[in-house]
Amino acid sequence: MTSKGATAAVDTNPAEVDATIEAAARAAGEWAAMHSGVRARVLEGIADRLDAQAGELIEIAARETHLGVPRLTGEVRRTSFQLRLFAQLVLEGGFLDVRIDTADPEWPMGVPRPELRRMNIPLGPVLNFAASNFPFAFSVAGGDTASALAAGCPVIVKGNPGHPELSRAVGSLVDEALAECGAPPGVFGLILGREAGVQALTHPAVSAVAFTGSTAGGRALYDLACARPVPIPFYGELGSINPVFVTADAAESRTAEIASGLLTAVSSSAGQLCTKPGLVAVPEGAPVLSELSNAALPPTGEFLNEQIAAGYANAVEQVRAHPDVRVLAGGRPGEALLLTTTAQAALSAPDRLLHEMFGPATLLVTYRDTSELLALARSMHGELTVSIFGENADETTRTLFTAATRVAGRVLWNSWPTGLSVTYAQQHGGPYPATTAPGMTSVGTAAITRFLRPVTYQSAPDDLLPEPLRTENPLGMPRSVNGARAQ
Amino acid sequence: MTSKGATAAVDTNPAEVDATIEAAARAAGEWAAMHSGVRARVLEGIADRLDAQAGELIEIAARETHLGVPRLTGEVRRTSFQLRLFAQLVLEGGFLDVRIDTADPEWPMGVPRPELRRMNIPLGPVLNFAASNFPFAFSVAGGDTASALAAGCPVIVKGNPGHPELSRAVGSLVDEALAECGAPPGVFGLILGREAGVQALTHPAVSAVAFTGSTAGGRALYDLACARPVPIPFYGELGSINPVFVTADAAESRTAEIASGLLTAVSSSAGQLCTKPGLVAVPEGAPVLSELSNAALPPTGEFLNEQIAAGYANAVEQVRAHPDVRVLAGGRPGEALLLTTTAQAALSAPDRLLHEMFGPATLLVTYRDTSELLALARSMHGELTVSIFGENADETTRTLFTAATRVAGRVLWNSWPTGLSVTYAQQHGGPYPATTAPGMTSVGTAAITRFLRPVTYQSAPDDLLPEPLRTENPLGMPRSVNGARAQ
Repeated sequence: MTSKGATAAVDTNPAEVDATIEAAARAAGEWAAMHSGVRARVLEGIADRLDAQAGELIEIAARETHLGVPRLTGEVRRTSFQLRLFAQLVLEGGFLDVRIDTADPEWPMGVPRPELRRMNIPLGPVLNFAASNFPFAFSVAGGDTASALAAGCPVIVKGNPGHPELSRAVGSLVDEALAECGAPPGVFGLILGREAGVQALTHPAVSAVAFTGSTAGGRALYDLACARPVPIPFYGELGSINPVFVTADAAESRTAEIASGLLTAVSSSAGQLCTKPGLVAVPEGAPVLSELSNAALPPTGEFLNEQIAAGYANAVEQVRAHPDVRVLAGGRPGEALLLTTTAQAALSAPDRLLHEMFGPATLLVTYRDTSELLALARSMHGELTVSIFGENADETTRTLFTAATRVAGRVLWNSWPTGLSVTYAQQHGGPYPATTAPGMTSVGTAAITRFLRPVTYQSAPDDLLPEPLRTENPLGMPRSVNGARAQ
Repeated sequence: MTSKGATAAVDTNPAEVDATIEAAARAAGEWAAMHSGVRARVLEGIADRLDAQAGELIEIAARETHLGVPRLTGEVRRTSFQLRLFAQLVLEGGFLDVRIDTADPEWPMGVPRPELRRMNIPLGPVLNFAASNFPFAFSVAGGDTASALAAGCPVIVKGNPGHPELSRAVGSLVDEALAECGAPPGVFGLILGREAGVQALTHPAVSAVAFTGSTAGGRALYDLACARPVPIPFYGELGSINPVFVTADAAESRTAEIASGLLTAVSSSAGQLCTKPGLVAVPEGAPVLSELSNAALPPTGEFLNEQIAAGYANAVEQVRAHPDVRVLAGGRPGEALLLTTTAQAALSAPDRLLHEMFGPATLLVTYRDTSELLALARSMHGELTVSIFGENADETTRTLFTAATRVAGRVLWNSWPTGLSVTYAQQHGGPYPATTAPGMTSVGTAAITRFLRPVTYQSAPDDLLPEPLRTENPLGMPRSVNGARAQ
């Protein structure tokens, strides 16, 4: 924890936590019913304020997180871009998934079909556990908040203890943007402290949870969410090794490119990225190994905080202590650590060797032949990403693609998994333990789906229906009618 | 349990359960990769066989479930229709939700956007706990099986103990349809017995669970699914009261229509429907009450089995024992039971009075004024359906619509919730305890979503991509490109 200096977080007390959640619950109906244009303006208002105040916010963030100004500058840009992308999405309306069945007395089911009109509505107050490693993009006004507000849900952010002052500053700016647009009080709330987070998670008025963090912490909260009298969806993005499989062809023809790409992917942001590659399979004796052992290692920057540094040291030690693991390069303070072992060792001690080291370390696993490479690929479990470096679509790369698809949310070809783009087709998720909800993503426009549920109205008159379902479609939302797209 | 006579189920033993699941796991990759045309033909093949063998299957079903031949005949038609609807869906391909982002060096996020191609893929082997009350439509070849096979998942059905012989007969027919189309062995499996179900639920190769049944049973299985080392999605459709709110206007102008509709909705299939209305709010002294107390009650038919009859008797007794509850009509064997109480009593003892009575009983709750009606509506929790009978869109009906939308998956206007149509816009779900997954439906084409997860391919060459993602779109699947619909 970083909460020892002048910026120590004052934990939110139980009465304040309750008041925050109850305010969110009271605001939920009005916020859900507000015109999509208002929601879009709120998101844009937050983005505008982030951009306008970027200088002072980055100063706080740099002090609290030790991330460099260039990285934080890019992150603010990403965050405000993301808010504006969700604003566009709200106006476009495809996420409502409007479906209309007209009445059909001849419906072949054998019973006349009534008129049915279906759309997605907001789930209710969302509790968002902010991450440590993206103080803007996965924190108070980050992707989870943006997508939940866009969906029409109030948001309670449990601020990360690593950047409390920044959390409060960004929280004020969210409040301002909401107030300016006439949103009711309570649509946004910020709470701080571990106990406050647990209290909020078990509050009956909370409808869903978003979490980005460690597997251990996320699993404990997931278990609490499931054990509630009324269980709620828990969208946790937990740990990932993000394996990279380099074929013999690629290792031979692109040695320098792979070595430099690997060093950047492992070192940047001190490796504190959920998509940092933690395992890189290369052919035994590949030139990339000697290239890496002789390379000048780029500076990694500092750790976010002492807790993360300690967790990293522990995770690395567990791998390093294995008799078949040796250091290929690095490992001094401020530089990456490249470890190496054999595929045989990795396959025989997966629990010990194949786990996340959250920081600038990776394990280069050398394989003797294609069957060892494929055995490694097939031994993977749920991952955010799997990357494949190859030259051609041949039997090996096809098999790697199939194995990767089975376990990962994103499969990359000749690319490193860091530097996640926020887009329409992005998928940042994957089977457990990468996430607790394999059908969902926490990055990209599809992230809004997490905070919605469908409702169907049967035989209801137009003037009792929400606008997107009315016959004249006053908002011009995309719809499908009788199973086919309309508009 | 009905397993005392000649049709006694022989529980699947642990070795057989493991073998069934392992066969499903082995088949998963091949089944997922099979051409959509094959999947569609399998679904049609099951439908054709159900229709062709309807006579003998209905005979078994009638003997095992005591449901009448007319009801079972309609149910077979619904079930084969449903299979064909999913076959169409597979061919059409919208459920793949194909999204393509072209590479964009000017992407306003500040970092060039790589090419990303995203589609839904099958989750893996699905365990389906069959229901007692729909031996065709929610059982071996019912909606959960149809939607999981359509998604490309192998299916293991845990047969309901109420109709083991029918389960085996329908299971054989599913096997035949799969074999005829060249599907690998293991795509479908049937297991029987409570212990077998629990064993399957905790097997590492099972990827998702569908369940239709009681709240107590469903919650116990949900808890097991969440507690696995690798938790999996559990789509449980549990209990629902399906409240009906009759405004004073409607009660006055449509007395006879409401009385007869209510009797049909409560009596048919002996009230053993998850959408049977269990609470009907009417104005104090409304003529519908005397109409009902003097009505000739339609015969309900027999209970499915002794266990259900006993559960019904217990649930009814709990309500009836309340000092403010009296019998309005019925209650003899083979007829519905109409109970009545006041809104005040219902609001002050909700746990005792407002719970599911699975069988032909309902509680008529009389309210003195609109504020009591609205208080009742606001006191509801997660429901599959809420129905509103009214004359106009006025303040009362608007408030009722808002309250209904907050808790229900389906909101009906001047209609009874039984007789669920299988369509594109149907929603059979709702917040807990109606279901364990409020964003999902178990009826209608959207049910397929439960068994899918998205994967994004980054910068991959066409010949390594699944067909729906290739540039030339050989299957003609609907796609969205750069956030806008294409095709």
